[in-house]
Amino acid sequence: MRIQTIAAALLVFVGIASAQRVALEKTENKTILLFTPHPDDDTFCCAGTLALLAKRHNNIHIFIYTNDDKGSYDPDMTSERLARIRNGEEEEACRLIGIPKQNIHWLQFHDGMLEYASPKDLVEEVTKIIRTYRPDIVMAPDPGSEYVRWHKTDHRMAANNTIDAVRAAEWHLYFPNQRLHDGLQPWKVPVEAYYYVTPQDANYWVNIDEVADAKLAAALAHVSQWEPSINKYRPDWDPKALEATKQELRTKASKKDGHNVEAFRIASELNQQ
Amino acid sequence: MRIQTIAAALLVFVGIASAQRVALEKTENKTILLFTPHPDDDTFCCAGTLALLAKRHNNIHIFIYTNDDKGSYDPDMTSERLARIRNGEEEEACRLIGIPKQNIHWLQFHDGMLEYASPKDLVEEVTKIIRTYRPDIVMAPDPGSEYVRWHKTDHRMAANNTIDAVRAAEWHLYFPNQRLHDGLQPWKVPVEAYYYVTPQDANYWVNIDEVADAKLAAALAHVSQWEPSINKYRPDWDPKALEATKQELRTKASKKDGHNVEAFRIASELNQQ
Amino acid sequence: MRIQTIAAALLVFVGIASAQRVALEKTENKTILLFTPHPDDDTFCCAGTLALLAKRHNNIHIFIYTNDDKGSYDPDMTSERLARIRNGEEEEACRLIGIPKQNIHWLQFHDGMLEYASPKDLVEEVTKIIRTYRPDIVMAPDPGSEYVRWHKTDHRMAANNTIDAVRAAEWHLYFPNQRLHDGLQPWKVPVEAYYYVTPQDANYWVNIDEVADAKLAAALAHVSQWEPSINKYRPDWDPKALEATKQELRTKASKKDGHNVEAFRIASELNQQ
Amino acid sequence: MRIQTIAAALLVFVGIASAQRVALEKTENKTILLFTPHPDDDTFCCAGTLALLAKRHNNIHIFIYTNDDKGSYDPDMTSERLARIRNGEEEEACRLIGIPKQNIHWLQFHDGMLEYASPKDLVEEVTKIIRTYRPDIVMAPDPGSEYVRWHKTDHRMAANNTIDAVRAAEWHLYFPNQRLHDGLQPWKVPVEAYYYVTPQDANYWVNIDEVADAKLAAALAHVSQWEPSINKYRPDWDPKALEATKQELRTKASKKDGHNVEAFRIASELNQQ
Amino acid sequence: MRIQTIAAALLVFVGIASAQRVALEKTENKTILLFTPHPDDDTFCCAGTLALLAKRHNNIHIFIYTNDDKGSYDPDMTSERLARIRNGEEEEACRLIGIPKQNIHWLQFHDGMLEYASPKDLVEEVTKIIRTYRPDIVMAPDPGSEYVRWHKTDHRMAANNTIDAVRAAEWHLYFPNQRLHDGLQPWKVPVEAYYYVTPQDANYWVNIDEVADAKLAAALAHVSQWEPSINKYRPDWDPKALEATKQELRTKASKKDGHNVEAFRIASELNQQ
Amino acid sequence: MRIQTIAAALLVFVGIASAQRVALEKTENKTILLFTPHPDDDTFCCAGTLALLAKRHNNIHIFIYTNDDKGSYDPDMTSERLARIRNGEEEEACRLIGIPKQNIHWLQFHDGMLEYASPKDLVEEVTKIIRTYRPDIVMAPDPGSEYVRWHKTDHRMAANNTIDAVRAAEWHLYFPNQRLHDGLQPWKVPVEAYYYVTPQDANYWVNIDEVADAKLAAALAHVSQWEPSINKYRPDWDPKALEATKQELRTKASKKDGHNVEAFRIASELNQQ
Repeated sequence: MRIQTIAAALLVFVGIASAQRVALEKTENKTILLFTPHPDDDTFCCAGTLALLAKRHNNIHIFIYTNDDKGSYDPDMTSERLARIRNGEEEEACRLIGIPKQNIHWLQFHDGMLEYASPKDLVEEVTKIIRTYRPDIVMAPDPGSEYVRWHKTDHRMAANNTIDAVRAAEWHLYFPNQRLHDGLQPWKVPVEAYYYVTPQDANYWVNIDEVADAKLAAALAHVSQWEPSINKYRPDWDPKALEATKQELRTKASKKDGHNVEAFRIASELNQQ
Repeated sequence: MRIQTIAAALLVFVGIASAQRVALEKTENKTILLFTPHPDDDTFCCAGTLALLAKRHNNIHIFIYTNDDKGSYDPDMTSERLARIRNGEEEEACRLIGIPKQNIHWLQFHDGMLEYASPKDLVEEVTKIIRTYRPDIVMAPDPGSEYVRWHKTDHRMAANNTIDAVRAAEWHLYFPNQRLHDGLQPWKVPVEAYYYVTPQDANYWVNIDEVADAKLAAALAHVSQWEPSINKYRPDWDPKALEATKQELRTKASKKDGHNVEAFRIASELNQQ
Repeated sequence: MRIQTIAAALLVFVGIASAQRVALEKTENKTILLFTPHPDDDTFCCAGTLALLAKRHNNIHIFIYTNDDKGSYDPDMTSERLARIRNGEEEEACRLIGIPKQNIHWLQFHDGMLEYASPKDLVEEVTKIIRTYRPDIVMAPDPGSEYVRWHKTDHRMAANNTIDAVRAAEWHLYFPNQRLHDGLQPWKVPVEAYYYVTPQDANYWVNIDEVADAKLAAALAHVSQWEPSINKYRPDWDPKALEATKQELRTKASKKDGHNVEAFRIASELNQQ
Repeated sequence: MRIQTIAAALLVFVGIASAQRVALEKTENKTILLFTPHPDDDTFCCAGTLALLAKRHNNIHIFIYTNDDKGSYDPDMTSERLARIRNGEEEEACRLIGIPKQNIHWLQFHDGMLEYASPKDLVEEVTKIIRTYRPDIVMAPDPGSEYVRWHKTDHRMAANNTIDAVRAAEWHLYFPNQRLHDGLQPWKVPVEAYYYVTPQDANYWVNIDEVADAKLAAALAHVSQWEPSINKYRPDWDPKALEATKQELRTKASKKDGHNVEAFRIASELNQQ
Repeated sequence: MRIQTIAAALLVFVGIASAQRVALEKTENKTILLFTPHPDDDTFCCAGTLALLAKRHNNIHIFIYTNDDKGSYDPDMTSERLARIRNGEEEEACRLIGIPKQNIHWLQFHDGMLEYASPKDLVEEVTKIIRTYRPDIVMAPDPGSEYVRWHKTDHRMAANNTIDAVRAAEWHLYFPNQRLHDGLQPWKVPVEAYYYVTPQDANYWVNIDEVADAKLAAALAHVSQWEPSINKYRPDWDPKALEATKQELRTKASKKDGHNVEAFRIASELNQQ
Repeated sequence: MRIQTIAAALLVFVGIASAQRVALEKTENKTILLFTPHPDDDTFCCAGTLALLAKRHNNIHIFIYTNDDKGSYDPDMTSERLARIRNGEEEEACRLIGIPKQNIHWLQFHDGMLEYASPKDLVEEVTKIIRTYRPDIVMAPDPGSEYVRWHKTDHRMAANNTIDAVRAAEWHLYFPNQRLHDGLQPWKVPVEAYYYVTPQDANYWVNIDEVADAKLAAALAHVSQWEPSINKYRPDWDPKALEATKQELRTKASKKDGHNVEAFRIASELNQQ
């Protein structure tokens, strides 16, 4: 516990919603780390915002907890091969929104197995990443989201673990070997932007109208996540299926006041309590 | 992540409540698996619905995570003996609503100790059950329920574990040995019916008026869960206590629009995200 | 599962809020155990209530899960030294509200590491404490609170673990060695008072007007939690900083109907389900 | 501890070597379980003895802890495919010495990963197997062997786990659910025959002259374990490599007094202390 | 690593056997802790030596890792009851050799389950015991003994854990909370006496002729460990069985040069390397 | 299991000692990895050999499992400070035998806590190191050594873990992400040189006469491991203590046929079985 939390405790959480707005998509020349359980969650939830941030010369790094090496109905698929495929798709999706391949980092857990990792080791690993990059913004799945997201293994762990590491990174006495042997100093993340939020938790919406097409293209780059490739792998799109999927995505795209948006819960220190 | 989840992500969860209604109690000739933390949770929350489903020739299997071998105030009770007693009571309660003894399966954990099992092994075990039975409906405690249920060990684990297994069962690359050595194919559970829901999460109510008496009888078959037997074990009811308990149960029975009901949150794929 | 839970199950949780009020601060000559993740959470959330309870001759024991040995920005601080400092501050804060030093007990985990303890051993340890002291009231962080608190490691574990132990303590078949070798009998905690509640969960507010100054003094006794000492340790206050902090705390103090209050969710058995 | 161990304690282990000889290969019409870490350890160490035992109408079951799905230098091999290959080879090797396919059972751990399984769950699983089959003889790797074998993960675990399960199987209070829910009675294994023994530990040698050819054939059935198939998988033998391998195996075959032998440490209860 | 180990390293272990003899049974007015996996291992291996030490006014404390609550063939026995029985027998056995009941301490693990405890917690617990009692001699099962003992779960863990704790107790930076919160200072155990040694490891033999009868009586006090009570529990001896058992024990008693002896490996610091 | 092990199995380990000699100290221009539990075990056991190898232009890297942050009797020492001290001493000791500071790598575990790390993660980490450096020789503590070394936590784990990683590194299907995401190819370590061997296991002795002084200097560089600094830390030597220690080390230095030697068990593939 530290000083800032006292206020919250005494306030009984009054005013949490009001104080924390940051103009996320206006950020320029900053370091931004996005943590994602699988190599497509970042695309589906944040590709528009990422595209805007890439345009503004931010240094964006994507950290992917798992390989996503389980999610195919193709009976001839193997995990090793699927990991390779998903790897390539993620690189293509990132390229389309302006993030170079060398900024993608894999934590290398197997799909669905993140929950069974050693949580202490995992927090330590992500703490080291944060202390190394010293990001201005960390993007992660919202650990506070309601049941739909909470249920899913990998998402639960990625959400809790990232926030635990954000907190640990701030204090040099957490994992002190990182200072001793690696010369890493503590780092206090100024802003967290949580994605996969429920409507009642969202407190910030990024207008992505100008990059809606890039987001659509990035989503479609994950070919093996879509029919027909998810059922019987093929590296390219069947033209008809492509058209239908585009249509569906456009229809279902998240809107607010007539604009394409991506929703976030933006928080600063208070969330760490 | 897979294709269906994209819609949800883009939609920011609009319309989750509307899309998923299934006429649960009208189901006929299907395979239904109910997972329960203890041998009485199934009775107290779902006995009416189960009785209706049994009448319609569904093949119902009850999987019980724990032995329920701790919950007695009788100072002379031992865990081994209590497990035997609860075993017999569950068989009787199931018989009264039309489920034969051979359809009851025990996962054999000790009461209150489910939380300390290896979660990976536990998911693997339930995944195997699902791939073996290939159920049309899985019933389980709601992992999304609010604090009252969430707090309780065994319930937490049973809820999360069952839904994790439902998800894993669908993809052949999860626990691939089950296909390799046991010849089990992946299975996508079409419908989940969650019990122990909070009022704000419930989206379906089964009218159990016609089987209310059977449910009452089944609840009373768990003799050792009630006074006076919970305090000093006796295998039968004291007539006066029986009358008082019946009266109390009738008074407190869950009602909606004047009918006896059981509440569920019915979901399909979306819940797995 | 036991008899009392049936009512809740059948009721679908109707009426939970209404039934459980206890006049917490009027309690006299009772045994009260407060479990806290760090040696300051008890002060910030409950010092007023504790001061009132101490005046009424209650036997209050504070159990502190962790040493709080990480939360300093001072680059020369070590964990060992910080633990010693926090130890002394807690003793002073407790003294100021009338709780003697020998009533403070340390479970001795490192700050931020409670999550990685063996949960089974931890429940067993707290179960033993409860069976030894046989408290009339247990105070603990609310495991049902919303995202702000839930996120934080140590708090998550302290909340869940305490309630799991409350439940286990009641049944002699949990951890039966405690009866066999230590001669400890089971104990049913009559009342739980959860602190760190969200506004929507709070169901009881203690008016602490008469001890507001003592609470302020106790909060300020945690010198190393505040600027400037948190940045560069010094054992005493800079007079200007002290004045500013006092002012801030007074301004932000939790109020209800014009009174200084502390908020709780008071529950009895139902919470254990 | 139980009565038989007292003797050993008081004796300071005098006479362990002398007392325990059983004419292993003369056994007839008995149930024999062999536990092996990988699907080839049984062949290389015991195929001759197994062939003799199969001829004498013993009911032999092979339990294989792992899939052996890692040991190939072929860069295009995947674990799933290798497991399938090793599965087929084991079936063929067993067929050649008279053990039918349905008597081969896979515990399904990944190669090299047995060490990281939950040891308690693993002992429980093998205890159940022993109580189900009620074997007259259990064959397993020797946990007492010297460094060469001890070093190797999977072998360490398979050796210790099997002997722990032999011991647990004997007492009904170990894993009592197996009696309660599965109706399994305790079983005391009368004889253990440990393979992979060092020369100084071996106390029994089976003359396998009459089945030496069958053993050779069985060893060669594990095609993918040998060059050239281990380097670049092919399902069949290159004739020249086959000849060379045969020659090498004949030259290196274990001999004692001019006979082909297989070495064991045969033990009965004393080993369990 | 510390200074003393350098000698050993440079010496390549020359002379280990020669340097460490202590006249164990002549010790007077000292504190002696004996750690035993089950409540009878201490009797069978060391009761004679303990009787001699008790006569010489040593303060002997017995720490028993497990309850020994599994080892009965009686089909009606339960674990709870067996633990109670074994408890009483241990108290009687200790009484017969001069150790009072209050000097017996139970660590309360279930029989056969010690291996699955958290090893870190277990070392911490025993380290605390050592720092509290500050013993002159620690007696424990020999972790270096050969296969017979090594195989047995509980014995493996008790042996390794005790020696790990002896080492940890010596350095204040191990488990520093014990100094910080409990005021316990580090303690260097001067002498370790390992029992359950193999003949080649034993380096010290205590002549127990004068207390041979007391040892025999103590061994027989563990009634439930012997036939017929191990098969069908009865609290007393059948006179015929008693005579036969006495006879057997006398015949098999460990002898050296015509005397009744108990064998040990006595070590001091070097063993800790 | 793979082809090479068959020979060993059939041979019943005949000839292990004879086949594996490699002229360790004559190696030139190779890559050599030494794994050590603490930053001084490498010095005490191998500094002479390392000095010879450094002269012959080998690329030597030292990997140190723990910080050695517990072993001081100085009551004012803290773990953080001790780790810093030991770090500096190791750098100095390595410098004296010709190994530059940047070739020292810390795995960063706390002293005495290696045993409680996740063994699977630890093997994976060391496997990655081996695949990255592709060493010609790996030096590690002997997992086969007798009781003296086996007893000690950290040493047990370092020995087993290193050899497990040597084996895993060879097969690309172990930890396949290392190939997939990091581009690391499998690597078969040709030679292992085990130190901390018992006399009966040693099969190779390096004559270190020409570098005996350098070894002595390196040993003395670990100032805080020796009296008086181990009791009350001072960074330099008291001249009298220095002389006494030098004398003692010279007297006790390991000799064979009149020469200063370091003993090893050199092995190649066979050890991996």
